[in-house]
Amino acid sequence: MNALQQTYGGSLSLLTDLYQLTMAYGYWKQGLAEREAVFHLTFRQSPFRGAYAIACGLGLVGDYLESWSFDRSDLAYLETLTGGDGRPLFEPAFLHYLETSSLKCHVDAVPEGTVVFPHEPLVRVRGPLWQGQLIETPLLNLVNFQTLVATKAARISQAAEGEPVLEFGLRRSQGIDGGLAASRAAYVGGCSATSNLLAGKVYGIPVKGTHAHSWVMAFEDEQVSFQAYADALPNNCVFLVDTYDTIEGVRRAIAVGLELEKSDHRFLGIRLDSGDLAQLSITARKMLDDAGLSDAAIVASNDLDEYEIRELKRRGATISVWGVGTRLATAYDQPALGGVYKLAALRDEHGEWVNKVKLSEQELKVSNPGIQQVRRYRIPDRFCFDMIYDERQGASSAPIAVQLDNEASVSPPVSAETEELLLPVFRDGQLVGPLPSIHEARERAQSQLRMLAEPHLRHANAQPYPVGLEEQLYRTKRDLIAAHKGRHTGDTT
Amino acid sequence: MNALQQTYGGSLSLLTDLYQLTMAYGYWKQGLAEREAVFHLTFRQSPFRGAYAIACGLGLVGDYLESWSFDRSDLAYLETLTGGDGRPLFEPAFLHYLETSSLKCHVDAVPEGTVVFPHEPLVRVRGPLWQGQLIETPLLNLVNFQTLVATKAARISQAAEGEPVLEFGLRRSQGIDGGLAASRAAYVGGCSATSNLLAGKVYGIPVKGTHAHSWVMAFEDEQVSFQAYADALPNNCVFLVDTYDTIEGVRRAIAVGLELEKSDHRFLGIRLDSGDLAQLSITARKMLDDAGLSDAAIVASNDLDEYEIRELKRRGATISVWGVGTRLATAYDQPALGGVYKLAALRDEHGEWVNKVKLSEQELKVSNPGIQQVRRYRIPDRFCFDMIYDERQGASSAPIAVQLDNEASVSPPVSAETEELLLPVFRDGQLVGPLPSIHEARERAQSQLRMLAEPHLRHANAQPYPVGLEEQLYRTKRDLIAAHKGRHTGDTT
Repeated sequence: MNALQQTYGGSLSLLTDLYQLTMAYGYWKQGLAEREAVFHLTFRQSPFRGAYAIACGLGLVGDYLESWSFDRSDLAYLETLTGGDGRPLFEPAFLHYLETSSLKCHVDAVPEGTVVFPHEPLVRVRGPLWQGQLIETPLLNLVNFQTLVATKAARISQAAEGEPVLEFGLRRSQGIDGGLAASRAAYVGGCSATSNLLAGKVYGIPVKGTHAHSWVMAFEDEQVSFQAYADALPNNCVFLVDTYDTIEGVRRAIAVGLELEKSDHRFLGIRLDSGDLAQLSITARKMLDDAGLSDAAIVASNDLDEYEIRELKRRGATISVWGVGTRLATAYDQPALGGVYKLAALRDEHGEWVNKVKLSEQELKVSNPGIQQVRRYRIPDRFCFDMIYDERQGASSAPIAVQLDNEASVSPPVSAETEELLLPVFRDGQLVGPLPSIHEARERAQSQLRMLAEPHLRHANAQPYPVGLEEQLYRTKRDLIAAHKGRHTGDTT
Repeated sequence: MNALQQTYGGSLSLLTDLYQLTMAYGYWKQGLAEREAVFHLTFRQSPFRGAYAIACGLGLVGDYLESWSFDRSDLAYLETLTGGDGRPLFEPAFLHYLETSSLKCHVDAVPEGTVVFPHEPLVRVRGPLWQGQLIETPLLNLVNFQTLVATKAARISQAAEGEPVLEFGLRRSQGIDGGLAASRAAYVGGCSATSNLLAGKVYGIPVKGTHAHSWVMAFEDEQVSFQAYADALPNNCVFLVDTYDTIEGVRRAIAVGLELEKSDHRFLGIRLDSGDLAQLSITARKMLDDAGLSDAAIVASNDLDEYEIRELKRRGATISVWGVGTRLATAYDQPALGGVYKLAALRDEHGEWVNKVKLSEQELKVSNPGIQQVRRYRIPDRFCFDMIYDERQGASSAPIAVQLDNEASVSPPVSAETEELLLPVFRDGQLVGPLPSIHEARERAQSQLRMLAEPHLRHANAQPYPVGLEEQLYRTKRDLIAAHKGRHTGDTT
């Protein structure tokens, strides 16, 4: 049983929009259902006004695809749906077709933890038109949110400059899986641990936690409460010191901590959860050091994010562990990644590929056609250019690419090493092989971020990373746009 | 099998923070675990700068509590956890205690769909200290997000002035349940339907949807695509008209729509998804009316929320159905409700109740003590005052209350009708009776909103609704604060 099956009992094949089903039905009625199609999942803008994102969610996509099939309860439900006239929306033969179909798509994707940029396909789906359509919504749901939170976690971890970041967001996250999925993505993006026990159980993420204000309030006074905690859990003592008066709290924590250290246990530290965290941490650090407890950590929490952590560090905070909740788990300042999933090629009745674009008034929002692959160029220790090309045409060893943002022609450095980003994940209803674990994905995210030049890593005024379309694909796209404009404005083409 | 069990296969008893478990263990070690405690779940500020919220999530809480129990896999996982010294965090006897315990809490809550205000308990938990502690995180998770989205949906529905609002958020929602739970809460808050088929299946919410741009792109031209859709699904024809050129799209939709109406089918309408929705809807309305299709609806979508809908209406938009996605399902402008859960009373070793408050530098953030109930006063057709009182003391028929925001003393109108908001939900491990359905909750939300005076309904500059503490409870709280301050600053009390 994979993690998704372990969490979700029933079939998730209806985790999609109704219009995907009505379109699938329409394709089937029109004899188009089995036509081979290619879709790409991309985003148009990096989140949080940054330059990059951390691709995440593929593990869940793998779990999803692996367990895709319509069960009896799904079909019984679809049978009940009616159209505007009260008559059934779907005919029984179509429901039978759903029931007896298995997933035939080929899926290629960027490994979790990879640094990615706007307009690059994170997932490519190639297979029967109706199936590519049906899995659009769940793929977007899984990849959008995982990528969003992994990116947020990477930014926060960057601000923490190597100090551990703990994810505490469950209580204010968006639903059960809003919490569970956030813990997963936060770990991939760089967090060290979560407070969420179910995430620990299901995904194997390290868990951390000690006590809340209610523990202190349950005793007649604070020092008694710390002593009681130390008696019960001598190997897990981080005392929350701000229930009444923070500095008094630190003093009491030190008293209990010194007793604890006299036994064979270690006093792990204190947690600050309100007030001026910079000033309080400086004072608390001095008090701990003066008491000979210089190994004791100062954990801080209270509406933290990358901006707040930067500011606390600037003010000299001596915090050694960062507890981050709501602002990470909900990606508070931008709670959705605007990922899209577009049809890019479809075979015609003769079996020939027809390239497809979705037009838009803004050129940058026009989707890219073809069967795409991304080639990443690296000069020693730095990623320097990404080129999107059509796999059917391939890319020469010295290609020319047209940059997406400014249409400048560029020649990627010939001496650079290259790597293709999309790797086979799913073939004919089966995972190609085991996907990287979340621990490997987390490692990958960290090594990938080290390959990005500083201007692309900035939290504000980040410099866009150069991404281009290989020249031939660029021309294909331009011709398609011109043809559409001609056809739809009445001009001749 | 309840909805939550139907969705989630495994045990959700570990859907909590590790620190709840370590505290539960600590209470158990200290002989405090079975002490009777009272906790309240409240929020301190209405979301979106409004004055109210729509209480939501209780149905899920009921499902959760009903299925609460630690299974073998939970215990096996807890066994693996270790403290700072690598030794087990929990001793086997405690895990056995978890395994053999059933939930003994009494839970009272405000019915779903009730209009609620800051500082009012939405849920009250009374029972063994360790159990009240363990269920804090899942209760907050479920109630925070449901209440947030139900409130957002109520605001959006209000802006739509009775026209149907459809929820389309799944693809960008926060995880699988971020989508599923959002569909549920959006419906309770006032939406008419969702695009999310799984929400339709699991919760019985009406589903809507027709086709996407990819349908149009799969055919050689737009008119052929509309015709093909009408052939396949003649009873579900709402055509998306902006794939290439919106006005051309409307013209083609009308052509196919007129053909459709010649058969025994009805043309339901068109959908606009980009561009100047106000202007396009006015033009499209005229075109449809001129063609004799005045029953055809104009559905609009594209980053809509209450502010955007208001603005479109101000500009004369003739949109009749509103499709709302990301901004509703993620509560984009405030993606988390800051609900809290505080210990308010605990029996001492003699069985006497001791009231508890959590202090804060800001008076309004100090939690309220006692075993609370809320009495709502209504003069004909209007809610006029809510009073929080301690159930042990009761409230006289002519009480005095102290308003929370300005500490003014008020006498609620003697002639008013009153209603107690917290109702019994859960007693001794069992639901007291069936909870209201989501359809009843939706009805309730609508009738409750009609009872609120206009100044409290505003989207900006809303006037706070008056909520007070019954005088005796107010004095209890004040005395507790004074005693704590005395004790913790060294003053005598």
